Amino acid sequence: GMDGALPPASPTGLSAYVAVSQLLGLTLLATTGAWLGRYRGGVAWHSPLQFNVHPLCMVLGMVFLQGDALLVYRVFRHEAKRSTKVLHAVLHGLALVIALVGIVAVFESHRTKGIPDMYSLHSWCGMAAFVLYLLQVRAGDPLGPRGGRNPAAPCNIPALLQWLLGCGFFLLPGASSSLRGRYKPQHVFFGIALFALSIAACLLGITEMLLFNIKDSYRHFVPEGVLANTLGVLLLAFGLVVGYVLTRDDWKRPPLAEELALSMDFKTLTEGESPDGGSQ
Amino acid sequence: GMDGALPPASPTGLSAYVAVSQLLGLTLLATTGAWLGRYRGGVAWHSPLQFNVHPLCMVLGMVFLQGDALLVYRVFRHEAKRSTKVLHAVLHGLALVIALVGIVAVFESHRTKGIPDMYSLHSWCGMAAFVLYLLQVRAGDPLGPRGGRNPAAPCNIPALLQWLLGCGFFLLPGASSSLRGRYKPQHVFFGIALFALSIAACLLGITEMLLFNIKDSYRHFVPEGVLANTLGVLLLAFGLVVGYVLTRDDWKRPPLAEELALSMDFKTLTEGESPDGGSQ
Repeated sequence: GMDGALPPASPTGLSAYVAVSQLLGLTLLATTGAWLGRYRGGVAWHSPLQFNVHPLCMVLGMVFLQGDALLVYRVFRHEAKRSTKVLHAVLHGLALVIALVGIVAVFESHRTKGIPDMYSLHSWCGMAAFVLYLLQVRAGDPLGPRGGRNPAAPCNIPALLQWLLGCGFFLLPGASSSLRGRYKPQHVFFGIALFALSIAACLLGITEMLLFNIKDSYRHFVPEGVLANTLGVLLLAFGLVVGYVLTRDDWKRPPLAEELALSMDFKTLTEGESPDGGSQ
Repeated sequence: GMDGALPPASPTGLSAYVAVSQLLGLTLLATTGAWLGRYRGGVAWHSPLQFNVHPLCMVLGMVFLQGDALLVYRVFRHEAKRSTKVLHAVLHGLALVIALVGIVAVFESHRTKGIPDMYSLHSWCGMAAFVLYLLQVRAGDPLGPRGGRNPAAPCNIPALLQWLLGCGFFLLPGASSSLRGRYKPQHVFFGIALFALSIAACLLGITEMLLFNIKDSYRHFVPEGVLANTLGVLLLAFGLVVGYVLTRDDWKRPPLAEELALSMDFKTLTEGESPDGGSQ
């Protein structure tokens, strides 16, 4: 009876969209590499090329790996929730470490060249994306005591955001009363919003780099400009496909055997019978 | 019995978030005006200031009015669906007309100054947002024969997008079979995605304008740079609040008396009884 409610195969459409997202993800990494390698002299740490580590790490960490971390629950629909959570956390952790390397690269490069930090809209958006992403991942840590999908678990995103933003979003009436019971939807909304912000920060970075490097020839459709614009379009396409997969209602993760077993345990307990297989 | 299922008041939280969104919307219009008036010489049509019409119209049309058009179904939760739809369409139409004026302004300004069009990532994103928005509004036109929430109504967004993009998104397996029954979720997803793309295009435009006008002083935190960055942050905040209001599950529009009456008519028809009040 339980097997009938749990078809092992993913919906066909879902697999195709996920495949397209991975193709787009690899293409945008290749395009970033081609841009930096072909037109910007390549990538190196202790050299004037240190700056180039920045775009490569941010596209890899804040877009590709962050996007894949979000997709994990859709791709591994029928695996154990705990394993999927660990993979979700590992991908986010990897994304954060790689993004941190990219941030260090740009700060060191600025220091070497005597350029001030954090003055541009790109830097404001990018830093906001990174810091909020760090807080979001920390708050959703499945290995920590506050993780999991338990709706009664305390949620510290609002407190951290309040602390960070000072005023605002979560201080509004109507939010506080029902927040604990809404942990997961909030987590999902902010996850997608931060992913979108990360992509926007990348687009701003592309525009900055082009206007600093090829300001006068950009308007004449030089190959570097067209390639970098194409990278921007690929970033948007990746974001669109990932966003679609994440928000489509009938592609949401179905309840698992372990979750059904738990609710059955609860049901049998309340009904005074003995559970027929109480593992987990 | 029916009155009990239809509380006339909006959720408190919803009203507060909508109020904040409108405050943010007005603030971002004022900030745009302040930037253009204080640092860019103001706005005029037949003059070298014609370019400045562009950012003003795009922020007003593609962000503020488009955002408000999306909010209409959440704000007027208990009004007749037909009136709300007309308001939704009128706001979108106004947004499109104002955006068109803004696009004409930049093309004319470029022609006067001998600058090529459509070479930058900003122009690619902005034009994509405008054209797709035009198609999205056209496909969702509630005054046209294909409008309405009838799940059996033919949907021409996929066909238009296929025609426009050539390949891809809707050609994938899994999408085509179930698209007709999914008209509204698709419409809502693309509506929010286009709104996000419009905001991203604005951020790119701000960065371009700053790097063209104050490239050398921008890094020294001059007031114009900080003001324009702040405008970018306000655009993101407006997008975040509108997106939150639109996607929060328990703030979705409840079924209306007219819809309940229709389903009751259907029920009584199938059960062989007479409806007790069949007014729309």
